[in-house]
Amino acid sequence: MERITISALYADAEQLGGQKVTAAGWVRSVRDMKNFGFVTLNDGSCFKDLQVVMNRENLSNYEEVASCGVGAALIIEGVLELTPDRPQPIELQAQTIVIEGPSSPDYPMQKKRQSLEYLRTQQHLRPRTNMFRAVFRIRSVAAFAIHQFFQDRGFVYVNTPIITASDAEGAGEMFRVTTLDLNNVPRTEKGDVDYSKDFFGQSSHLTVSGQLQAENFAMAFGDVYTFGPTFRAENSNTRRHAAEFWMIEPEMAFCDLAQDMDVAEEMLRYVIAYVLEHCPDELEMLNKFVDKGLLERLNHVANSQFSRVSYTEAIEILQEAVKAGQKFEYPVEWGIDLQTEHERYLTEQHFGKPIFVTDYPAAIKAFYMRLNDDGKTVAAADCLVPGIGEIIGGSQREDRLELLEKRIVELGMNPDDYKYYLDLRRYGSCTHSGFGLGFERLVMYLTGVDNIRDVIPHPRTVGNADF
Amino acid sequence: MERITISALYADAEQLGGQKVTAAGWVRSVRDMKNFGFVTLNDGSCFKDLQVVMNRENLSNYEEVASCGVGAALIIEGVLELTPDRPQPIELQAQTIVIEGPSSPDYPMQKKRQSLEYLRTQQHLRPRTNMFRAVFRIRSVAAFAIHQFFQDRGFVYVNTPIITASDAEGAGEMFRVTTLDLNNVPRTEKGDVDYSKDFFGQSSHLTVSGQLQAENFAMAFGDVYTFGPTFRAENSNTRRHAAEFWMIEPEMAFCDLAQDMDVAEEMLRYVIAYVLEHCPDELEMLNKFVDKGLLERLNHVANSQFSRVSYTEAIEILQEAVKAGQKFEYPVEWGIDLQTEHERYLTEQHFGKPIFVTDYPAAIKAFYMRLNDDGKTVAAADCLVPGIGEIIGGSQREDRLELLEKRIVELGMNPDDYKYYLDLRRYGSCTHSGFGLGFERLVMYLTGVDNIRDVIPHPRTVGNADF
Repeated sequence: MERITISALYADAEQLGGQKVTAAGWVRSVRDMKNFGFVTLNDGSCFKDLQVVMNRENLSNYEEVASCGVGAALIIEGVLELTPDRPQPIELQAQTIVIEGPSSPDYPMQKKRQSLEYLRTQQHLRPRTNMFRAVFRIRSVAAFAIHQFFQDRGFVYVNTPIITASDAEGAGEMFRVTTLDLNNVPRTEKGDVDYSKDFFGQSSHLTVSGQLQAENFAMAFGDVYTFGPTFRAENSNTRRHAAEFWMIEPEMAFCDLAQDMDVAEEMLRYVIAYVLEHCPDELEMLNKFVDKGLLERLNHVANSQFSRVSYTEAIEILQEAVKAGQKFEYPVEWGIDLQTEHERYLTEQHFGKPIFVTDYPAAIKAFYMRLNDDGKTVAAADCLVPGIGEIIGGSQREDRLELLEKRIVELGMNPDDYKYYLDLRRYGSCTHSGFGLGFERLVMYLTGVDNIRDVIPHPRTVGNADF
Repeated sequence: MERITISALYADAEQLGGQKVTAAGWVRSVRDMKNFGFVTLNDGSCFKDLQVVMNRENLSNYEEVASCGVGAALIIEGVLELTPDRPQPIELQAQTIVIEGPSSPDYPMQKKRQSLEYLRTQQHLRPRTNMFRAVFRIRSVAAFAIHQFFQDRGFVYVNTPIITASDAEGAGEMFRVTTLDLNNVPRTEKGDVDYSKDFFGQSSHLTVSGQLQAENFAMAFGDVYTFGPTFRAENSNTRRHAAEFWMIEPEMAFCDLAQDMDVAEEMLRYVIAYVLEHCPDELEMLNKFVDKGLLERLNHVANSQFSRVSYTEAIEILQEAVKAGQKFEYPVEWGIDLQTEHERYLTEQHFGKPIFVTDYPAAIKAFYMRLNDDGKTVAAADCLVPGIGEIIGGSQREDRLELLEKRIVELGMNPDDYKYYLDLRRYGSCTHSGFGLGFERLVMYLTGVDNIRDVIPHPRTVGNADF
């Protein structure tokens, strides 16, 4: 069977008009008008449906098709008709219709609107709905845009390890990876769990970040990026947290914090522009039914410069706001970790666009960030966007061996665990920076969908590893 | 600092000749000729080095630079000179050189050749060597080529879950993912491990394949692909097996086995051609020092059709070979699983190019493969390539509900565990197919490197999760 995708039928309508073609897809609706009928067919190749017209007279299995039900798979041979005067520009005049796979009255994706909560229990079928077809196409296109952005600029894509014996952040709750028999955990003479008997011969976990390993490669290739899954075993059940999520982590040699922010900003604008160009139908649907401000916001951000403000200035802005009557749950003073309410006030209320907040207190940031000359802040930059809050966390890395060693000891960590990382400062150390972009948060931003469970094909959260 | 990459210096040499530029990178060698000296600099932006010329007379820190050692990071300002008559087409006449990060005499990546075994103990530094710069650049370019291939054809990239409570193959040794305290494993009243207390509320593992979930999305989008890490907890220490590796798994609706092979073949040829075009320097190096037949083989495959042979025919070929004196360790008869020695004989000796072996006995293949009309073989197709053996395993999926249910029961599996998968056959089932490509095996094929540990940034194997 030489089928033509619906996407190609629309794209090449001029050449294909009047010709015999074969389309295949799934029924979204059937209307039986007695002597003739309409089937709305979708094959997933594009957001648009194909209108199929069938005549009782010349279709021997008309009855069967008319009652095949939503969700059935059909293969349709017919003549493509150009219909510029009707709502849809093309129609397929069916000559034969093969019911490849019937559906059933208990098909859970009937046409009526379902709640998002219900659809989360039908993760294998929900991509067949309009909203999820839009979301997951955009997810795919955005992922490619990110690869394209970095590859065009000569970055090397590095697959950093998923299973790791180290902990990039020096904190973060992690999932253990093991082949030990939990019914019969081996013990050392002292009575501890004997991880020397485990698959990797040591205690191993799922990675929380590929940054440290990406640095190994940035010191060889200059510009590199990761794009892979990362994990947090946090027992938090919010609409923004998942246990398994994808991160993009570029790392750049001979690059300081200002240049780091330039790349992050350019990347975000590139991805937004790319999705605007490649997913107009999907965005229109989301703009209509999910988030009425979506298109305006994306167009605005694609064409505007992000603001940059130091943490110290941000605290002053927040304190001014409090004086002017703004209420926050958490008190604002220099030294605090910004809460989501603070981040959203800054990006949504005060600046009204994405911002970078820079130079945070060292005490609330990771050990690897470069100490500023003031001795109390580090060269960090978080990007906050309206509706989401933090979407990117970046920093210039501490490239001075003595200062990095000192910091590791100060925090009670063991420098021996960071031998390889310190080696990068022993042999040809250089100014370098990077950032981490949470891919799901980006997809939420691009789609207006406000629950992370609805932008991941099969989300993993506390108590949920189904499908 | 506005630095120009060495890649850009070569690409734009004509315009930049005679101009003042700033380059930054790492020293690969220094030659001090008393009154002047040469620094060979690499910044990872391309395989080529930059020759830097410095004069004792006008460089105040000449001595310091001349003794800075291999691996030091330098920032060099100077004038780019076109030198078409010398071995390298450009040189940088240094005016100032800043030693950004010194190196040290104990730097492990001195210029002399190191063994691959030793370099595996220096995974954080080995990307700075010629061979690994070639391998990991090709790995990155090949990954992008795969995305480009599928995106150009309208496929949707799906991030299937890494943590899963199901087992795609119905077999395969898996890694447990847990947050239970191994010192104090919770028990049910019966004394079993109480996984309801675990993070996901059930026993969970690392995925061995994203196929079943990819099928969920193929039934909505038509054509989809995954590209992500997969895991096997097999206690095998071979040069072809790693515990963590990346897989590409396309899944296509309204697609039979022949079309599946067409896509697989087209994809492989596309990736090879893409790498040949984008990594000529890297391939030349590998062809010279790692695998002298590499370029000839890749060029041959990029331009030749793969052979297709049924399993039954393959067994006959092998039996003929045995009759003619060919020795195999494992006996050849209909029903056996082909061993690597058999696969390599077929692809290397008999056909001398990549081949698909199709229609294997059902008994040695996975439950989800479509039963052929003969009732004893399934619509499977493995792609075997010279030097590697199996690189792709694909099949047409069983799309008939009754037959699939029957097979699940026959194999002693529980149909309830496959409810979602069976739902795809209940609602709009259709002919569909897919395959899995082991990315590391592809990179081995593309580079001629014969140990999987040398094509993964930080490989995970039995007893190894360092870095």
